[in-house]
Amino acid sequence: MLKFDEQATLKNMEGALKLRPQINEVVDAIYERGFQNVCWLGIGGTYASAMQAVVHMKEKTSMEIFYENAAVFLTTGNKRITKDTFVIISSVTGSTEEVVAAVKKCNEIGATVLGFIDEKEAALARMVDHLISYPLNEQLKFFMVGDRLMQLAGEFEDYEEFYAEMDVHFAKGIVEVEKAADEFGQAFAEAHHDDDMHYFVGAGNQWGATYSYAMCYWEEQHWLKTKSIEAHEFFHGMFEIVERDTPVTIYVTEDSQRSLSERVVNFIPQICGNYTVIDAKDYDVPGISEKFRGALSPFILHAVNNRIDVHIERINRHPMEIRRYYRQLKY
Amino acid sequence: MLKFDEQATLKNMEGALKLRPQINEVVDAIYERGFQNVCWLGIGGTYASAMQAVVHMKEKTSMEIFYENAAVFLTTGNKRITKDTFVIISSVTGSTEEVVAAVKKCNEIGATVLGFIDEKEAALARMVDHLISYPLNEQLKFFMVGDRLMQLAGEFEDYEEFYAEMDVHFAKGIVEVEKAADEFGQAFAEAHHDDDMHYFVGAGNQWGATYSYAMCYWEEQHWLKTKSIEAHEFFHGMFEIVERDTPVTIYVTEDSQRSLSERVVNFIPQICGNYTVIDAKDYDVPGISEKFRGALSPFILHAVNNRIDVHIERINRHPMEIRRYYRQLKY
Repeated sequence: MLKFDEQATLKNMEGALKLRPQINEVVDAIYERGFQNVCWLGIGGTYASAMQAVVHMKEKTSMEIFYENAAVFLTTGNKRITKDTFVIISSVTGSTEEVVAAVKKCNEIGATVLGFIDEKEAALARMVDHLISYPLNEQLKFFMVGDRLMQLAGEFEDYEEFYAEMDVHFAKGIVEVEKAADEFGQAFAEAHHDDDMHYFVGAGNQWGATYSYAMCYWEEQHWLKTKSIEAHEFFHGMFEIVERDTPVTIYVTEDSQRSLSERVVNFIPQICGNYTVIDAKDYDVPGISEKFRGALSPFILHAVNNRIDVHIERINRHPMEIRRYYRQLKY
Repeated sequence: MLKFDEQATLKNMEGALKLRPQINEVVDAIYERGFQNVCWLGIGGTYASAMQAVVHMKEKTSMEIFYENAAVFLTTGNKRITKDTFVIISSVTGSTEEVVAAVKKCNEIGATVLGFIDEKEAALARMVDHLISYPLNEQLKFFMVGDRLMQLAGEFEDYEEFYAEMDVHFAKGIVEVEKAADEFGQAFAEAHHDDDMHYFVGAGNQWGATYSYAMCYWEEQHWLKTKSIEAHEFFHGMFEIVERDTPVTIYVTEDSQRSLSERVVNFIPQICGNYTVIDAKDYDVPGISEKFRGALSPFILHAVNNRIDVHIERINRHPMEIRRYYRQLKY
């Protein structure tokens, strides 16, 4: 299978799950001390992950949780972020300038910052109150934080049962999804690698990923034009430009917002003959109970997207690591 | 001037400003009784206005305020919306199904709903706790609610001074902006009425409007393809697809996020030769103090967009009231 190291992928995800005791130690201490609210802070791809963490928690929690864009925090500010706010960030390089400045501002305010920073030697790693350094798996790290908070708040009764299943079955299951999705990924890439414009529709815990996949993968890494839209917003304007040949991909989750994407899936054949449905439900993850499936959707759909990416990269002879402008020019 | 009834426009805006005592009566009663948080609830265009209300208030307030999408509220729910939440909605027809169902859910929860419903005979008008019925000016109505709340909370010291100026100078000033923008609007429409794809960049209190203008005007009413992006997010992926001839329009506000749009304005000439800057600062509104200019940006830019619209409509021979699918098909 093209660009797929099964053992490395498996090992990486298993390692991420093993961060849980370390995460819980931080979360438990903060919970015990007390906090006013929880802020998921990011920009670009990490902003998208922040949105997903909020949707994930919103299913169950009555805590005050919100996401904030680092650049907006630096200009408009956010008076809800106080010394009693628990802020969570993620950064691969630790060098994204808005995030570095935003954490500095959090330090000044006195908020408590937990940073998942892959590059542990970065200056940012020394600026956060709690550092956890492990490559990739941003979404999983965020969900583990949110889930622990909700367990402590008595909002996630099945927490132990869920993670008992996750620890044993998740990594292997997602690797199998990636393998199962390869044929589809290749066919999809062959059909859409040269689209003039591609529309991605998503909702629920996949909305952030839909936004990010369109922008941070197709636009940034494949240089293909896209627009992403929330499934429910699709009917409030955007769909008027969809015609027979407009390429539209709809992600369908198994969380509480499944019906919002299904509504698009049911409607679109009437007006469009070039649509694709990518449904998390079509991919088996053995060992994870039905009641927990909703939380798996972003991971399943991410695995499917991975397969699309490697085939587009190959067909287009456009290595995903090259950037035209990002970190090439000053801005 | 094409499709411009100066007297009617002026009268309509002046009438909207005169809603303030009625708005304040509602807000004062709710404030006095006490509330936990403030939720701006909408979908599509009203969702966009809700985003703007939150950005507008975020400049000053430490109250818990948030926007919520009606469809998300109906599926995932929002446990922060309680019997002590002050919910604000707006609806022209009173018949948007998600909003009707969301208000019903608010009623069940016991939240207090203020509805700006243009069609006062709609069933929705009987479902809200407080009804204010007056055509158009959604943003102004929302800002008047937010401003009063902030004044009561001691967060808007200049409130009386601001509205003393607004009451006398706002409507006339915005009408003059519309007149001043007509020539630009025509030239812009001539240049871009047939764009295959148009990018709109915005930030601050114009972000919601940027999202909405792209989707609810160009896509829904002109059937022209667009993508909207927050100015700060532009640099985190999207800009990689911008080339010499890519049509990009950047809205620049005078609020706290001005610098975010300016950053795009300063950068873009390096990579694109087909960009347009629409800067609120370029339009005078006599009688409004410099320190209040930030709050005017969405109104100024809306007036400019109005002029673009009428010229695109004329050039494309595409009446803005026709819909291909919206309320034509079942979904």
